[in-house]
Amino acid sequence: HSAPSPPPNYGSLFLSLASNDTAAIHLRALTLHPHVAGTRANSLAAAYVRDAFSSLSIPSRVTPYSVLLSYPVERSLSLTVPGRATTKSFSLSQETYPNDPYASATAEVIPTFYAYSASGSVSAEAVYANYGREEDFAYLTSRGVDVAGKVALARYGRIHCEDIVRNARVAGAAAAVVYTDPLQYGGAPGEAWFPNSRWLPPSGVQVGSLFLGVGDPTTPMWASSEGCERVSVEEAMATDDMPGIPALPVSARDAAEIHGALGGDAAPVDWQGRGGGPVYRLGPGPAILNLTYTGNDTMATIENVFAVIEGAEEPDRYVILGNHRDAWTFGASDPNSGTASMIELAQRLSVLQKQGWRPRRTIIFCSWDAEEYGLTGSTEWVEENMEMLSSRAVAYLNVDVSVVGPVFRPSATPQLDELFQETMKLVQDPDNSSQTVYDSWVKSNISPMIRRLGHAGSDFAAFVQHVGIPSTTMGFGEGPGYPVYHTLYDDFVWMENFGDPGFRRHAAAASIWGMMALSLADEEILPFNYMSYTIELEAYTKLVENEVRGTAISCSPLHNAIRALKTAATKVNGERKELQRQLLSNQLIKDSLKTRSLNDRLMQAERAFTSREGLFKQEWFKHLVYGPSEQNDWESASFPGVGNAIASARRDNTTESWKFVQHEIYRVARAITQASVVLTGNLT
Amino acid sequence: HSAPSPPPNYGSLFLSLASNDTAAIHLRALTLHPHVAGTRANSLAAAYVRDAFSSLSIPSRVTPYSVLLSYPVERSLSLTVPGRATTKSFSLSQETYPNDPYASATAEVIPTFYAYSASGSVSAEAVYANYGREEDFAYLTSRGVDVAGKVALARYGRIHCEDIVRNARVAGAAAAVVYTDPLQYGGAPGEAWFPNSRWLPPSGVQVGSLFLGVGDPTTPMWASSEGCERVSVEEAMATDDMPGIPALPVSARDAAEIHGALGGDAAPVDWQGRGGGPVYRLGPGPAILNLTYTGNDTMATIENVFAVIEGAEEPDRYVILGNHRDAWTFGASDPNSGTASMIELAQRLSVLQKQGWRPRRTIIFCSWDAEEYGLTGSTEWVEENMEMLSSRAVAYLNVDVSVVGPVFRPSATPQLDELFQETMKLVQDPDNSSQTVYDSWVKSNISPMIRRLGHAGSDFAAFVQHVGIPSTTMGFGEGPGYPVYHTLYDDFVWMENFGDPGFRRHAAAASIWGMMALSLADEEILPFNYMSYTIELEAYTKLVENEVRGTAISCSPLHNAIRALKTAATKVNGERKELQRQLLSNQLIKDSLKTRSLNDRLMQAERAFTSREGLFKQEWFKHLVYGPSEQNDWESASFPGVGNAIASARRDNTTESWKFVQHEIYRVARAITQASVVLTGNLT
Ligand SMILES: [Ca+2]
Ligand SMILES: [Ca+2]
Ligand SMILES: [Zn+2]
Ligand SMILES: [Zn+2]
Ligand SMILES: [Zn+2]
Ligand SMILES: [Zn+2]
Repeated sequence: HSAPSPPPNYGSLFLSLASNDTAAIHLRALTLHPHVAGTRANSLAAAYVRDAFSSLSIPSRVTPYSVLLSYPVERSLSLTVPGRATTKSFSLSQETYPNDPYASATAEVIPTFYAYSASGSVSAEAVYANYGREEDFAYLTSRGVDVAGKVALARYGRIHCEDIVRNARVAGAAAAVVYTDPLQYGGAPGEAWFPNSRWLPPSGVQVGSLFLGVGDPTTPMWASSEGCERVSVEEAMATDDMPGIPALPVSARDAAEIHGALGGDAAPVDWQGRGGGPVYRLGPGPAILNLTYTGNDTMATIENVFAVIEGAEEPDRYVILGNHRDAWTFGASDPNSGTASMIELAQRLSVLQKQGWRPRRTIIFCSWDAEEYGLTGSTEWVEENMEMLSSRAVAYLNVDVSVVGPVFRPSATPQLDELFQETMKLVQDPDNSSQTVYDSWVKSNISPMIRRLGHAGSDFAAFVQHVGIPSTTMGFGEGPGYPVYHTLYDDFVWMENFGDPGFRRHAAAASIWGMMALSLADEEILPFNYMSYTIELEAYTKLVENEVRGTAISCSPLHNAIRALKTAATKVNGERKELQRQLLSNQLIKDSLKTRSLNDRLMQAERAFTSREGLFKQEWFKHLVYGPSEQNDWESASFPGVGNAIASARRDNTTESWKFVQHEIYRVARAITQASVVLTGNLT
Repeated sequence: HSAPSPPPNYGSLFLSLASNDTAAIHLRALTLHPHVAGTRANSLAAAYVRDAFSSLSIPSRVTPYSVLLSYPVERSLSLTVPGRATTKSFSLSQETYPNDPYASATAEVIPTFYAYSASGSVSAEAVYANYGREEDFAYLTSRGVDVAGKVALARYGRIHCEDIVRNARVAGAAAAVVYTDPLQYGGAPGEAWFPNSRWLPPSGVQVGSLFLGVGDPTTPMWASSEGCERVSVEEAMATDDMPGIPALPVSARDAAEIHGALGGDAAPVDWQGRGGGPVYRLGPGPAILNLTYTGNDTMATIENVFAVIEGAEEPDRYVILGNHRDAWTFGASDPNSGTASMIELAQRLSVLQKQGWRPRRTIIFCSWDAEEYGLTGSTEWVEENMEMLSSRAVAYLNVDVSVVGPVFRPSATPQLDELFQETMKLVQDPDNSSQTVYDSWVKSNISPMIRRLGHAGSDFAAFVQHVGIPSTTMGFGEGPGYPVYHTLYDDFVWMENFGDPGFRRHAAAASIWGMMALSLADEEILPFNYMSYTIELEAYTKLVENEVRGTAISCSPLHNAIRALKTAATKVNGERKELQRQLLSNQLIKDSLKTRSLNDRLMQAERAFTSREGLFKQEWFKHLVYGPSEQNDWESASFPGVGNAIASARRDNTTESWKFVQHEIYRVARAITQASVVLTGNLT
């Protein structure tokens, strides 16, 4: 026996193992066929992911749930114009191109539809409703255009389809049609489209889900475990979280024909399409849209796949990496760029394991199912394991789309900002080998920002908003507004030609994701810094102050609570340093309960931002700092309870409703105070 | 330096240090003056308790809260009988006896009243309403006796005064008068009373609080911290948790006069008083009661006193011992018998400290204020420290009245049953030196039972029902039905002559309490056994099955969940044994994270019985196994959400209401399932 050599620097080793090819190979394999949740194709994809982990000797398992999904059975849309002899029937199909290698698999692609759309037939005049926001419908009213009983024609670009259709229903529309306007999805006028550029072809249709809630609609506050309580499908479909009216997504080309048949006043400038096109008019009519939709809303089996590297010292502390697997079509960007990055990352960790590495804490890989329907797979699992995750989960690191373009886009709960930035400094920019991802991010013309997780954008929602677990999500490229998002053309060809030629971004995403995981899993003291949280909270408070200016509402409870949090964050940061010093100088034994105690404070402080009662009328959402805004779930909202209360108070303008705003401010302040108590670790 | 001697057996040492005299001395000092919450006298009592800990070199502190309390300003009650020339004015005062050593201090006793009673004047016919239960008022209706607008005369004995007055209000009564019937409080006919026996003198009046909620009424879901949000006093007094009508407690003697002036039909046999007395009649009238009450419902400062022995190995795990300090009068039994036991216990621990003992976990002594008003001091503190207690509190050991008689009366959450019984085996019966407390308990003619904590009986409520912390409470003697409960006569003379002559029971209570605390604070593996929980849960399920027989309601979700819990309890008990074996054989290092992990599962499993959303319409109450019944808070209720739903369904008898029963059954089943997941320690 020779003397043991010092342990390798596993971080450097991890970075050095980056493999573009591995990511590319897995992405190609995962995207040969479309794989919508609940289908055999997606079950095969689950098996593929499981096999990938098995071949890396990482133990894996599948956890199935029976949940309510939704599939199209019959769709038709035609345009009648009084006085015109013929009715135009739209084909509602996305076109392949010459030599499309996926042309034959296109037959397996789900017909363009909206999950959970009501079934029914509507024939009515069309009205143009711009982005389908509340203010757009309010504008129509102000212009004397009545939407009641009409078919609302709206375009993507500002809010999610489920919010557009809800707003249309609230405005009284009998049906809704939503399209991808070339202004956003088609590049400059005259520009080419896929496969000749990254832009969406004119027949491209963006599908989606119209469910406003999260998880399985038949188990609204609990897990879809075997033998569990269920709301009936009929009841689930009748709630306000469902669209309630028939709706269809259509292509830019079909929408152009509808626009061409609309009369009425010209729409305002910011309602128009890209330059050189026809003028958009408000309607109503004379265009009449005849829409028929029959959906099959049915219980189906979904499968979450888990792979676990057990922690050596703290097996009961979890660092969780998650990515969904189900896709509306081939899913080359959404979500399997992330899946490919995850497997590539796992492959590197398996090499580390062979070199003797074992993480201090348990690392769990999650391949979620049915994210597209309503974050269903992750939500049901979090609900099922709520108590365990609440006491054991250190962090959740999500990646949905890992790549659609060059610019890195980090999102996090703020105590992870510092770790995120430090990690970005360790990884080379895949598009500029002379600088790090951090450098490019700082130098990019938009000011470098870390986005927040207060919306239902991906599988982090249950972790952050239901349990209060420090979380991140990340990816290279723009958000859900990229051209082929949720369309037929989100395939391997698009990715290798436009999304990530060379697959360096896939590997870079895995590098950042994996280095974050290594820090969180291996560092003796958790790398959380709550000072960034106080800065964020101050900014949100400023926003509230602006909103309530001129009222009797006081934000001083928030200021006081944030001040206490700052004191606590300073104190705990000092303790971290001192403990670190003691550990380095061997004054403290490793794995001591003293370290565990500090780590628990750092971990539990995020939980304290949740309230057990949840948001008013949205009680599943427990986080009082990050959660959905009632009006718009496109971007992260802060202090959602306060925001919703202000919106109500503006509408009702009663003493009670303003008092409720103050109450919601106090609630947030109390949560912040609890977080500072937890960080400090002292009972009153 | 000589070799270190083996550590002493601290348990035996602790038991050997029991001192009756110490308890007696402290009880005498604490009960020289009455000390109602919010008064200077009770602040002096707080200082006394603090000084006691200081003199034992145990660090202490005071945490004050400003809360809504209630005091009497003006009270009058008179009896008019049509046709009788004179009106009888009641003195509403409790009489001293010749040579009463507390006669002069009696002037400091708060006038007999009900806290939070509405102020007002009522003159109306009296109606006799037996124990004031819902069924008593229903019976009156069935006999054609209309309570509307009348003064309800009811007696103590089955439910709390706050429930009696609420029921009276719901029945339409304009006011309520509640008395102590000699049947329960006066011994056999002709028997002597205090100071010649333990029985209540005829002028004795049992005061109390009419608040149906818990904690400070101005901070219904949050802590009364400095600068916190407040409901206004007017709003707080206007809620359904407040009595809403004027009410007064009266003596047996005054009640006898009222009974004598009541006409109408004779009341049924089980509504009558003790043999040989006058026949009770239902009324209404001809007796007319003229009741005037003016209360001062006002913000006052209360003080919780804490004393802390910091844990050596696990300072962030808490074993909490609590007892309230405030008393309606002198408080010799309620609560200062408990306070005396607590100080006596602490004195023994201070001796242990001098012998080198330091607890593994932190021991916290709590002297609560304003328990009598609505568990106010403990509730506000638990609310203020909720997140910390949720992640750190191992157990809460309450003692309210530690002694009023000979028979030991244990109450616990079931995972503590085994420890409780083992501890009772270590302590000599203070009334029979030939056997242990356990022997006497087993041999007592009532079957030995450990009561449960599903009611608002004392300061354990917030710990068990709001947070889910394994808890106990205990005492020698009967429950709140003992003769001098909440009266002037609850003084040191009564205690030394009848409650605990010789003060051996005080010391025995401290022995059991302290040995429980030592086990919980010092045993490396927490002495929790969840098998007893499964047995209890099965019994509660049987009760539900009996209640829903003949309906479509299924209890199989409960059976399935309990089966899983049994499997989990068996598994964790096996792990406990194996770990214990490894520890004893030095195969496992002490203080390892492995032990901590097992302990966390044992500790957190109780939390899993709580639901974040809480009971339907009683959302502060989070525990789904133990919590208040809507109808009666006298005894512990199990599955309170199910019970309340069944009561509603019986009333409404709609499909919806029965479906809600099934929903509540599922909720409990889910909580039990979560507990089994936590015990097992495996994610799905
Ligand atoms: Ca669910
Ligand atoms: Ca409170
Ligand atoms: Zn996605
Ligand atoms: Zn998507
Ligand atoms: Zn008491
Ligand atoms: Zn009491």
